[in-house]
Amino acid sequence: MAPPLRVGIAGLGTVGAGVVRLLRRQAALLDKRAGRAIEIAAVSARNPEKSRDLDLSGIPWRHVDELATAPDIDVVVELIGGEDGPAKALVERALMHGKSVVTANKALIAHHGAALARLAESHGVSLAYEASVCGGIPIVKGLREGLAANNIRELHGILNGTCNYILTQMGESGRDFDDILAEAQRFGYAETDPSFDIDGIDTAHKLAILTAVAFGTEVDLASVHVEGIRRIGALDITYADALGYRIKLLGIARRAADGGIEQRVHPCMVPKATAIAAADGVFNAVVAEGDFVGRVNFVGPGAGGGPTASAVAADLIDIARGHVVPVFGVPASALSRADPTPITRRFGAYYLRLEVVDRPGVIADVAAALRDQNVSLESVLQRLRAPGDNVPVVLTTHETDEARMTAAVAQIAALDAVVEPPRLIRIEQF
Amino acid sequence: MAPPLRVGIAGLGTVGAGVVRLLRRQAALLDKRAGRAIEIAAVSARNPEKSRDLDLSGIPWRHVDELATAPDIDVVVELIGGEDGPAKALVERALMHGKSVVTANKALIAHHGAALARLAESHGVSLAYEASVCGGIPIVKGLREGLAANNIRELHGILNGTCNYILTQMGESGRDFDDILAEAQRFGYAETDPSFDIDGIDTAHKLAILTAVAFGTEVDLASVHVEGIRRIGALDITYADALGYRIKLLGIARRAADGGIEQRVHPCMVPKATAIAAADGVFNAVVAEGDFVGRVNFVGPGAGGGPTASAVAADLIDIARGHVVPVFGVPASALSRADPTPITRRFGAYYLRLEVVDRPGVIADVAAALRDQNVSLESVLQRLRAPGDNVPVVLTTHETDEARMTAAVAQIAALDAVVEPPRLIRIEQF
Repeated sequence: MAPPLRVGIAGLGTVGAGVVRLLRRQAALLDKRAGRAIEIAAVSARNPEKSRDLDLSGIPWRHVDELATAPDIDVVVELIGGEDGPAKALVERALMHGKSVVTANKALIAHHGAALARLAESHGVSLAYEASVCGGIPIVKGLREGLAANNIRELHGILNGTCNYILTQMGESGRDFDDILAEAQRFGYAETDPSFDIDGIDTAHKLAILTAVAFGTEVDLASVHVEGIRRIGALDITYADALGYRIKLLGIARRAADGGIEQRVHPCMVPKATAIAAADGVFNAVVAEGDFVGRVNFVGPGAGGGPTASAVAADLIDIARGHVVPVFGVPASALSRADPTPITRRFGAYYLRLEVVDRPGVIADVAAALRDQNVSLESVLQRLRAPGDNVPVVLTTHETDEARMTAAVAQIAALDAVVEPPRLIRIEQF
Repeated sequence: MAPPLRVGIAGLGTVGAGVVRLLRRQAALLDKRAGRAIEIAAVSARNPEKSRDLDLSGIPWRHVDELATAPDIDVVVELIGGEDGPAKALVERALMHGKSVVTANKALIAHHGAALARLAESHGVSLAYEASVCGGIPIVKGLREGLAANNIRELHGILNGTCNYILTQMGESGRDFDDILAEAQRFGYAETDPSFDIDGIDTAHKLAILTAVAFGTEVDLASVHVEGIRRIGALDITYADALGYRIKLLGIARRAADGGIEQRVHPCMVPKATAIAAADGVFNAVVAEGDFVGRVNFVGPGAGGGPTASAVAADLIDIARGHVVPVFGVPASALSRADPTPITRRFGAYYLRLEVVDRPGVIADVAAALRDQNVSLESVLQRLRAPGDNVPVVLTTHETDEARMTAAVAQIAALDAVVEPPRLIRIEQF
């Protein structure tokens, strides 16, 4: 019997508490599956005095600085969060001291993934981060090991449960964004400062990580085009439904024909019949397309103490089993740097909603602006009529270049009869 | 750089040809991901002279018996098929000679999994079989490693693409089973002798394997209750739709309250809004529920040369990386033997379709039979009327015991006015 794997846990929030509970409750199971015991050797948190609904009896407390260096700790589990500060310092110190690290910290990996991978590999230890993307879904393992024999062409997914919950609720209730957001905050599904989620930043972090794993490239967060869901209105949800679509905030990564990598986060209209349209509420979903396997979908709970602890513990079992996989699937030195493909090169269809003064000739002016940019109209919907008043007009286009569409929208926005900034949503026919 | 992993491939059918193509075309990628080259050291097939659309230049042919013993082969890939005969002999010999084995052979693993796991582990080598279940979906890895920290409560899935294709086509076209089966045979989606697929045997093999992985039990194929899809009629599909369901052939495994394991394969009505209902055509889907993670769904191509080769190659990469995981997630000696929970203990709702003579009192007699067994009716549908002639009557029940339902159905089948054997379909509210 191998000696136990001794784990030091930094951070006792929702995820930390979940990990402590899991390691205690499933001790016998983990022992059998990992071939050795996984023991909590120490915990650390900013405020040890804080009352927690968590049995920590018999577990020594340590200062966070000691976790990285203590000779009786084999693996550091970093659940502090934040891209810099104490989380980064802890992870770097632990790796330098030859300890493997398991983290749920997407901001850290998204910002410093390549450097940390080099550090881990130079010390021959693991840096595992399954819990940082899509909570309980084994998506890092799925891509990095399960689909390892494939060149991934494209991946897309719902990577943020808060946004998906809000969009789902808007669809079910017909209510507007602000209303649902306030409710989500009351229920604890959205933070008091929700911008990290609803402006797409969290999705961008996760997308950047998945892109690196899928394509064997250095994590390149700066190249992700990011738009959030603040400008999605109840009307857009209604029109999407009428057009056969659902609106989802997606992260999309694609290998371009020239070898570049396209990474973008924005609301999308997706056909109702797709798997991604069916993933509702706080669920996450990822679809990956490989050249041999075709399309594989992974769907599951994207957040929460239980699912995230499940992912942390799976990483610990791998480490206990002695498995070391290169952090992003290929050695850090072999990660490539792909040219980012800018969003202006996107080719696809568009949905455009305008608020216009209801008078003759407006649609002709709008159509002329599209024609001037060689954008072909697919449909025009003007359901409500109120002469002299403002009414919504919805247009969809055939596939075109983003650059052309942007130019046409600028021209349309400048029309006298268009009284609000146009709402543009990209249509993705996966 | 580690020395190359030298692979001997036995069997050059669709999957074998796919594996050869993959290993050649993705050689550079695999080298980078596995940390060493994966080389085809030899191939073997019953008829080397057969014309194949496959470039085998430079690859030595060997007799199958040599693959297991040749000192210049590290891993044997068994793609011969069949639960006994040359496939079993090859796998046993290879393991005994200290070679790891990768196989796509579900019949072999379902029938001899526990014995082969003991053999592999006693020789310290891997027996990998990702390709044997759900083609390209990394479901064995997902359960055995991704969800390894969970007690799995239940899993269910669409494990046979041929049946799912037939049921999907019946739903889309309104045509009857025999008609669609004949078409599927013409298109090559169904075998000339289709019984292995449509009678549920293939699904049972895969379910027995997933059950062992999920619950850490010895593979127990003999305890799987198996029914196929031959008796599903176009009318059943129509009624299912009207009731809010879709019909799928599922494999279901569940841990019973008394610690026993329930394993069953049969057509089910599942609510349209579930992920499993949305998996159409030749796609496979598995939903697993763990105590910490909750529900995770895996969906993807369940068969075919490309997807299956992707799974074989993923196993080869694991072996090249030096990863050895116990065959069914826990050491073979620690696999438990759970008592099988018989189908008679199933508790759930039922759909029953009768063909009856249209005369007063028939439904009263049917209802009385259900009442006699304490089965509570949920709905009765009798859409068509043709006095004196035969008409279909459809009933759904509230949740009840299978044993009661079976007794009631026997009583109903014996009624004079019931002119065909009743069709019973279990309703699963996942």
